[in-house]
Amino acid sequence: MAILSDLGTEILVPACAIVGIVFSVVQWILVSRVKLSPERHSLSNSSKNGTAEYLIEEEEGLNDHSVVQKCAEIQNAISEGATSFLYTEYQYVGIFMVAFAILIFVFLGSVEGFSTKSQPCLYNKGEMCKPALANAIFSTISFLLGGLTSLLSGFLGMKIATYANARTTLEARKGVGKAFITAFRSGAVMGFLLAANGLLVLYIAINLFEIYYGDDWEGLYEAITGYGLGGSSMALFGRVGGGIYTKAADVGADLVGKVERGIPEDDPRNPAVIADNVGDNVGDIAGMGADLFGSYAESSCAALVVASISSFGINHEMTAMFYPLIISSIGILVCLITTLFATDFFEIKAVKEIEPALKKQLIISTILMTAGIAFVSWIALPSSFTIFNFGSQKVVKNWQLFLCVGVGLWAGLIIGFVTEYYTSNTYSPVQDVADSCRTGAATNVIFGLALGYKSVIIPIFAIAVSIFVSFSFAAMYGIAVAALGMLSTIATGLAIDAYGPISDNAGGIAEMAGMSHRIRERTDALDAAGNTTAAIGKGFAIGSAALVSLALFGAFVSRAAISTVDVLTPKVFIGLLVGAMLPYWFSAMTMKSVGSAALKMVEEVRRQFNTIPGLMEGTAKPDYATCVKISTDASIKEMIPPGALVMLTPLIVGTLLGVETLAGVLAGSLVSGVQIAISASNTGGAWDNAKKYIEAGASEHAKALGPKGSDPHKAAVIGDTIGDPLKDTSGPSLNILIKLMAVESLVFAPFFAAHGGLLFKIWK
Amino acid sequence: MAILSDLGTEILVPACAIVGIVFSVVQWILVSRVKLSPERHSLSNSSKNGTAEYLIEEEEGLNDHSVVQKCAEIQNAISEGATSFLYTEYQYVGIFMVAFAILIFVFLGSVEGFSTKSQPCLYNKGEMCKPALANAIFSTISFLLGGLTSLLSGFLGMKIATYANARTTLEARKGVGKAFITAFRSGAVMGFLLAANGLLVLYIAINLFEIYYGDDWEGLYEAITGYGLGGSSMALFGRVGGGIYTKAADVGADLVGKVERGIPEDDPRNPAVIADNVGDNVGDIAGMGADLFGSYAESSCAALVVASISSFGINHEMTAMFYPLIISSIGILVCLITTLFATDFFEIKAVKEIEPALKKQLIISTILMTAGIAFVSWIALPSSFTIFNFGSQKVVKNWQLFLCVGVGLWAGLIIGFVTEYYTSNTYSPVQDVADSCRTGAATNVIFGLALGYKSVIIPIFAIAVSIFVSFSFAAMYGIAVAALGMLSTIATGLAIDAYGPISDNAGGIAEMAGMSHRIRERTDALDAAGNTTAAIGKGFAIGSAALVSLALFGAFVSRAAISTVDVLTPKVFIGLLVGAMLPYWFSAMTMKSVGSAALKMVEEVRRQFNTIPGLMEGTAKPDYATCVKISTDASIKEMIPPGALVMLTPLIVGTLLGVETLAGVLAGSLVSGVQIAISASNTGGAWDNAKKYIEAGASEHAKALGPKGSDPHKAAVIGDTIGDPLKDTSGPSLNILIKLMAVESLVFAPFFAAHGGLLFKIWK
Repeated sequence: MAILSDLGTEILVPACAIVGIVFSVVQWILVSRVKLSPERHSLSNSSKNGTAEYLIEEEEGLNDHSVVQKCAEIQNAISEGATSFLYTEYQYVGIFMVAFAILIFVFLGSVEGFSTKSQPCLYNKGEMCKPALANAIFSTISFLLGGLTSLLSGFLGMKIATYANARTTLEARKGVGKAFITAFRSGAVMGFLLAANGLLVLYIAINLFEIYYGDDWEGLYEAITGYGLGGSSMALFGRVGGGIYTKAADVGADLVGKVERGIPEDDPRNPAVIADNVGDNVGDIAGMGADLFGSYAESSCAALVVASISSFGINHEMTAMFYPLIISSIGILVCLITTLFATDFFEIKAVKEIEPALKKQLIISTILMTAGIAFVSWIALPSSFTIFNFGSQKVVKNWQLFLCVGVGLWAGLIIGFVTEYYTSNTYSPVQDVADSCRTGAATNVIFGLALGYKSVIIPIFAIAVSIFVSFSFAAMYGIAVAALGMLSTIATGLAIDAYGPISDNAGGIAEMAGMSHRIRERTDALDAAGNTTAAIGKGFAIGSAALVSLALFGAFVSRAAISTVDVLTPKVFIGLLVGAMLPYWFSAMTMKSVGSAALKMVEEVRRQFNTIPGLMEGTAKPDYATCVKISTDASIKEMIPPGALVMLTPLIVGTLLGVETLAGVLAGSLVSGVQIAISASNTGGAWDNAKKYIEAGASEHAKALGPKGSDPHKAAVIGDTIGDPLKDTSGPSLNILIKLMAVESLVFAPFFAAHGGLLFKIWK
Repeated sequence: MAILSDLGTEILVPACAIVGIVFSVVQWILVSRVKLSPERHSLSNSSKNGTAEYLIEEEEGLNDHSVVQKCAEIQNAISEGATSFLYTEYQYVGIFMVAFAILIFVFLGSVEGFSTKSQPCLYNKGEMCKPALANAIFSTISFLLGGLTSLLSGFLGMKIATYANARTTLEARKGVGKAFITAFRSGAVMGFLLAANGLLVLYIAINLFEIYYGDDWEGLYEAITGYGLGGSSMALFGRVGGGIYTKAADVGADLVGKVERGIPEDDPRNPAVIADNVGDNVGDIAGMGADLFGSYAESSCAALVVASISSFGINHEMTAMFYPLIISSIGILVCLITTLFATDFFEIKAVKEIEPALKKQLIISTILMTAGIAFVSWIALPSSFTIFNFGSQKVVKNWQLFLCVGVGLWAGLIIGFVTEYYTSNTYSPVQDVADSCRTGAATNVIFGLALGYKSVIIPIFAIAVSIFVSFSFAAMYGIAVAALGMLSTIATGLAIDAYGPISDNAGGIAEMAGMSHRIRERTDALDAAGNTTAAIGKGFAIGSAALVSLALFGAFVSRAAISTVDVLTPKVFIGLLVGAMLPYWFSAMTMKSVGSAALKMVEEVRRQFNTIPGLMEGTAKPDYATCVKISTDASIKEMIPPGALVMLTPLIVGTLLGVETLAGVLAGSLVSGVQIAISASNTGGAWDNAKKYIEAGASEHAKALGPKGSDPHKAAVIGDTIGDPLKDTSGPSLNILIKLMAVESLVFAPFFAAHGGLLFKIWK
């Protein structure tokens, strides 16, 4: 038996979740101390705090109320644009969620013909389980719950980001350290809120479901997988819609602004500039949050569903059953301590300390978490137990499970560092790409693509080793907890990740509010570090997605009662081949969507420059709203076909061709998609930073390539623009493709196992 | 029993091969009638034919001997450059071949400890087979034989191509029809020579080996697989080395010539122009020839090795055993008739008839071949027989085998047409890409990449259907003969394919010889059609490579005595994941190689323009030889790392991780590589033709984007340059990657099965 009692577990998990929420509220309060409304300041003259802030006068313009006013206005515009986009998106997604909920209910209910009678259990032979109809109802409920939690996390993340961007700008007046802390704290709000929320809702849902299910854990955890599906479905639209939004605006703004008109990035004269800043929030914040939440929910569900048919579930050992949740709980505490290292224990004083500080976050959280995992594995697990392994039970020791989680955690760190190496301009790969700009855009693109391809090698080996170790020790449960290990420091990972777009926005606001060059330099430094951390975050997202989908794939195969997925059968092989093609099909759609939406944006921006007199001179204001509308409409319209491809493929393949072919499709899309996702996101990151390298001109080599406007710089801008959809739309959306198809297959597995493979039944 | 007697087979196969060789000699004689040496013409005044040629005076300058002289000179320079490159390449490859031959002998000889005693057969239980040492010796011999045949085919192809290019230019003076026939006949020389040679050498080798092996067909055909390995090894270096050569020269020439100096393509003032033309011959002709020869040899070997352990082999039914060779024999006859449709039955009178004429070649050969296959399946096969199917024997009917070959043949046609749709500028995909050049190079690249991704969909479905049908009917034998079906019209396919670079060179020679604009227009029209057919040829090469590797994979699995390749085992899954990564690693190497080599070329070309006075004015001659040397040296040096990756991976994985992981690696690289190969080659083809679309200005839309030198045209040139390494180096080289790893695994399977998986043996 485990050392930790069931009661202890029942207290520990929600307590950690609540600590996380409280911590995020505290961070939010700290951020909100930076006052954005000068009016309120004059009213609250009595407040000591407010006055004290204004006394630290490090730079001119600190008391310039008109600048604060301007920042507040711009922030409002961004926040309104983002909110209105998300509301529009949610309307469409809401309709989809309801429709899909009905589909789930009908498909799963039909497995036993909507019978209300209890049925013999599938794995726990000899016992009676709840009717398939109950599973259909509870799967539908948990699907909706997952969707709502994801929606809430994304929305709150976007809110705090748009709340923090102008505040980061204002703090940048006082120094780079202050600005860094504001941006980082805001990121932490999102990180902790999401991690704690996800854990708490899942915990509550399990406890509520248990009231009905009682000892039928097999049914309970089968129904709970709907939570992962709901989370991932939302993430699909968040990533794809948000990704198209942000890049249509970004590419459109750059093509006319930077390339044709020669005005700087984020120039307020550019009509697409607000849409561009909105995009950072809906794409990189809301989309990324939904994506990682989906991974988190899915890996938890995958682990739970396998555990429910292992000795934990069969013997009803609650603490051991909750092992995945306890890992996440301890993860929140570890990340909390880690955050203090960035915000309280040390202080950033110079620009060059930013990137190391962020890197230290990763290292500290990983080291602390290793101890945390060891502790959890010691107190929450029996020293020996059995895990379900495709039809048989495999004996596993607790230290083996510790290794499974640990290998995932450290693989994440390795992926993070490799990503940094390939996308940061302090190392030779990006500098080589920058150097290739000497001979023009074509060589820049060739070198950038080659860099992305090459950057796949080590992450794939890291993932392969994690898979081999965890698979060998504890079958699919091992893979699921390895994924959880990689995601156990999600709060820190998300904080670092959200920090990037917030800094990006802060820079934009500084530019638009006409603040001094010095401030823009500071926000640019924050942003450059953010670019690299964004790439690292994407690396994590992809790595965890690969492990999660494999775990879900394993759970699907178990549930569909397939004993082998043999490549040497035609059904499986054609699935594998077609599955490997799907990421290309999907990328073709999303890339083209960005391209078409950007073309529309370009036309609108050109129209405004040509028809609004005084716009180039800065005497007239552009019509920002039309550009925001173009991005919104385009992304909503364009997210439907790729969304349909992902959602319908498992249903069609499972229903017509059956579970073997579907298993092949899942394996194929997994092994192919993860490569494209990594290479696309690193290629894009490298191009972006190669451009920044030339612009910053920090070395002799960089100076020889620059300055802004030189031929090599122009070539670098072209690369950067091409990279935009690769790194922010098609690349990261592929995570969702591979995860979502797997979790959907798992949820619908009972139906496919009972009624799937119609075409072959007719053929026979 | 089969209707065709064994004696009939023994006559039919070599007879068809000889007919093919004779036909190609006749074509060569017809081409050689175009006289290139004015001196010889004046000497042979008595020859009626020669004089008659000169009497058809359609255009001015037809009797201008100085132009002929110039053409001859340029042709000589190209031919010399190509020959010298191939000699240098062959020196390195020769060393490699000898070293690898020793490796094969040592590895395979060690299987039974170099024992000279006969051993019990592996499949044909109860019988005695020749010792493993004999298999090692004969595998080594057939490996060298395959390499030599490939070398010969590539070399002769290059020779005839460089022999024909200037002749095509001269014929273009008389009209587009004449030029077309010359270029096409020359392509046919190569196509028929290669198909017939490959067949004949294989036939002779089998018959000679039989003298030693006697009734031990199991050992005989195991040894014969070395032929495929040899062919493919040569193809590796031909494709990669040739690919790097051609694109380093092309990209280098374009970057300085077109982009910086604004001089037209193939301008004689450009120092890299000869290297560029040499590249077409060593890359697109010698490389492509070696690639398709490899596919042909491998699919034949895969079919034969499976047949040898099926009822054909067990019962020693020679005619049925030779079914794959008879298919190829009939293929030569069918292609012969098809060729006459292009050269004799119809005449091309206008530019717009070229592309349809080439397309008709594909359709006619496919329709005729369908009848041919039906006939062969009827006379050469018993009505019912058994095929080895991973440990058991599967009953197959002759009409089922007809369907297997037929489905491969028609899948090839579909892939060809889809490729044409996505890469020809008469359809909307390429026109959309051209249109996106309005907003610059970035959107052009985004749209081009999206087009390539999208173009994967239908070919993959076509391949999947072929695999499903042929796999279901006749297991791995079915796949192998489906691949043979796709390659049965190889003579026509290669003729069409080789026609492209010949026309391209002809255009270059016209430009360099200072011939009139009208002639250049004609060769350009020939070349534009050639671009599309080159893409079609690549589609065939990839499609057949996919089928071939699957067949080889199946043969490997059988030989390594693996009964299932279960994705749900960690060993296989990590193999699958890492295998799917290999094409990226390989592409990263080849792309970067082209980039670096092109940079060197750019520097040299810039140096010449800057230091040779009068070069831009055309009064001084550039130093062509240095550029040729740069391309040669770079390609030789750069082909080693990717070559080592491909050759060493199966050896390392098989020896250290064993046959299951290796099976995963093969499956992963197959399903992932085929996608990248198709998308890379179509993206590149589309960019090339989008540029040509704008340049030609044949429609209102195209005119609005042009003319040459406009901003959209510049954007299109950037896309074209990026596409060069994608479509001519990294994309097509991937065919070799997937085929070669599979055939190498098959050849070394006895060793891996006996001694492989060291690491796991230690771990245990």
